[in-house]
Amino acid sequence: MRALVSTGGGVHLEDRADPAPSRGEALLRVRLAGICNTDLEIARGYMGYAGILGHEILGEVIGLGPDTVLPDPLKGARVAAEINCACLACATCSAGLRTHCPNRSVLGILGKDGGLAEYVAVPIANLHAIPSTIPDERAVFIEPLAAALHAFDEAAPKPGDRVLLLGDGKLGLLIGLALASRSDLGEVIAAGRHREKLAILERAGLAIVLEKDLARTGFDLVIEATGHSAGLSRALAAVRPKGTIVLKSTYAGESGVDLAPIVINEIHVVGSRCGSFPRAIEALAKQRIDPSPLISETHALENAEHAFARAADPGVLKVLIRP
Amino acid sequence: MRALVSTGGGVHLEDRADPAPSRGEALLRVRLAGICNTDLEIARGYMGYAGILGHEILGEVIGLGPDTVLPDPLKGARVAAEINCACLACATCSAGLRTHCPNRSVLGILGKDGGLAEYVAVPIANLHAIPSTIPDERAVFIEPLAAALHAFDEAAPKPGDRVLLLGDGKLGLLIGLALASRSDLGEVIAAGRHREKLAILERAGLAIVLEKDLARTGFDLVIEATGHSAGLSRALAAVRPKGTIVLKSTYAGESGVDLAPIVINEIHVVGSRCGSFPRAIEALAKQRIDPSPLISETHALENAEHAFARAADPGVLKVLIRP
Repeated sequence: MRALVSTGGGVHLEDRADPAPSRGEALLRVRLAGICNTDLEIARGYMGYAGILGHEILGEVIGLGPDTVLPDPLKGARVAAEINCACLACATCSAGLRTHCPNRSVLGILGKDGGLAEYVAVPIANLHAIPSTIPDERAVFIEPLAAALHAFDEAAPKPGDRVLLLGDGKLGLLIGLALASRSDLGEVIAAGRHREKLAILERAGLAIVLEKDLARTGFDLVIEATGHSAGLSRALAAVRPKGTIVLKSTYAGESGVDLAPIVINEIHVVGSRCGSFPRAIEALAKQRIDPSPLISETHALENAEHAFARAADPGVLKVLIRP
Repeated sequence: MRALVSTGGGVHLEDRADPAPSRGEALLRVRLAGICNTDLEIARGYMGYAGILGHEILGEVIGLGPDTVLPDPLKGARVAAEINCACLACATCSAGLRTHCPNRSVLGILGKDGGLAEYVAVPIANLHAIPSTIPDERAVFIEPLAAALHAFDEAAPKPGDRVLLLGDGKLGLLIGLALASRSDLGEVIAAGRHREKLAILERAGLAIVLEKDLARTGFDLVIEATGHSAGLSRALAAVRPKGTIVLKSTYAGESGVDLAPIVINEIHVVGSRCGSFPRAIEALAKQRIDPSPLISETHALENAEHAFARAADPGVLKVLIRP
C-alpha cells in the first residue's frame, strides 16, 4: 500500500506492506484522514517518531486479527479510531486513565503506524461507529473535536465566566466553535493572528479580535491553542489572578517563559490532550458543531507529500487525504 | 533610622528618615526581621523594586497614623505584618482576593518600604497579635510559614497521596516541616541538593533523598520550591499523569522549559504565594511546627550588608536581623 511516512526530518510517500491486524485488532480501509499540526511538529522531530503518520482517521472495517470478533454496533458502520492504544493491564489503565497508559502506543505518533495510508490496523476497543447522518467531511473531525471539547473537562468554566481563546489554528477554531455553541458563558473572545481564520468563528457568533489588538485582561479562563511557545506568556498576561489557563499546544523544543506570574497571581495551568469520542460524535450528530468550514483542501493519497506541504502553508487550515 | 536598601543592583545600609504612618497605619519598632530568598532575587533585579527590603517582620506598635485607633487585641502585643497592602475598594478586593489587589503595594517588594530597618509603617488591617507563648525566634517565621502552608490550599493532597517536595532552601524546609506534621498522607519524600539541610527534615521524621539520587516517579503531588528555573522540568519528570505540581519558586528571568509534558500528561500546575497568618500563628502556638532549626545566624542591623551576603552563601539558611 501507499503511505505517508515521517522520518522526523521530513515526510515522504512510500510503498509499505499492508498492515496485518493483531489479535484484538481490526484492519481498516481509510476513507478519509486529516493532517494535524501535531503531524507537522512530528515531521520536525517532535516525539522522535518515525513511521506512518495520521491519527485523524475515518475508515471501515475490512478485516480482523486472529480470534477477533467485531462487535455488532461496528458491523457495516463507518468507524472513527481513538488514537491511544492502552495495555489495559497496568495500574494506570485500572485507574481509568487509559489515555495515560505508560505502555501505550499512539496511532501515527508513538510506536504505531497511523492512517495517512490506504489501510491501518487498530484495536477494536478503540473503534466507534459513526451514525449515518454525519457525512465523511464532518466525521473526519471526530478526533480533533474530541480533543477540543476536552479543554472544558480539565477546566470547566462556570456560568457567566469570561473566556479568552488564544489561537486560530485548526484546534483553536474547533475550540472556538465549541465555545460558540454554549450560551451559559459570559464574555467570550477569540484572539488570533489571521482575520480570515477568525472569520469562521465570527460567522459562528463569537466575538473576535486580532491578537495584536487584544487589550482586555482579567479573563477567568484562557484556552491557549496558539501552537507556539509564546502562547503561555500571552495567556498569563490575560488571565485574572487565581484564574485558569488550559494548555492545548504541543510543539518540539523548549519555551522561554517567565514563570513568576504563575506564582505571583496563583494561576492554575492545566494541560489537556485527548477527549471523548462519543461526545464529539454526539455534537456532530446533533449538529451543534459544524467543523466543515475548516476544510481548506482535499487531496488524493498519491499527492500526500504536496498536501502535507500545503498543510504547513500560512492561511491553510484542514487538509484532508482521501486514499 | 538605619535601613537596608535595595537598588535592584545590590544592597546597602542607609540613613533614612523615620517612616510617618499614614491614616490607618501603625508605626512598628522592628524586633526581628528575616532575610528571604525573594530579597536576594530583588537585589538581583527581580520585581524592579528599589527601596527598603524586608517582609518577614516581627515588631511592636509604637505609633499610629492620623485619626487611627489600635484595635484592642493588638494593644501591648507583639505583631506580625501581612505584606500585601490592598486598596480594599476594587473588584478584586471585594471578591475576597485582597492579596491579588491590582492596586496593592507589598512590604519591601512593591511600592512600599519594608522592615529591614529600625521602624516600618504598616496598615493596621495587616497586623496580627502574637500569643506570648511564641518566642521571637519562632514568631519571625510567621510570614514564610504562612506561605509554606498555603501550598496545600492551592492543591490539597488527599489522604494516602504520594507527595514529593523538591527544594531544601528556607521555604522548602518550612513546607517539609509542614508535611512532617501530617499523618494522613502516603509516601512523602523531600529531595534537595544539600544533605545537611535535608537533615533538618529527616530529624522531623521525613524521608529524604539527594535530588541527583531521586529515582521515584508517579507522585500525586509535587511541590516545587527549588528556587531555580530547572525546578519545573524536574517536577514534570516526577509527577504522575493528571497529577498536580505546586509552584512556589519566584526568581528573576525566563525559564527554558519543555511544556509538552504538561499537555501530554495533563498535569495541573498551580502557583502559590502568600498564605494565612492566623493559621501559621496557630501552628506555632500549638507547637505543631518548630522552624527555629532553620536559623543560621542573627546579626545587628548595623551589620545587615554582611548578613545579606551571608544569606546568599551556600549552606546558610535563615539569617535574622535584630535592629
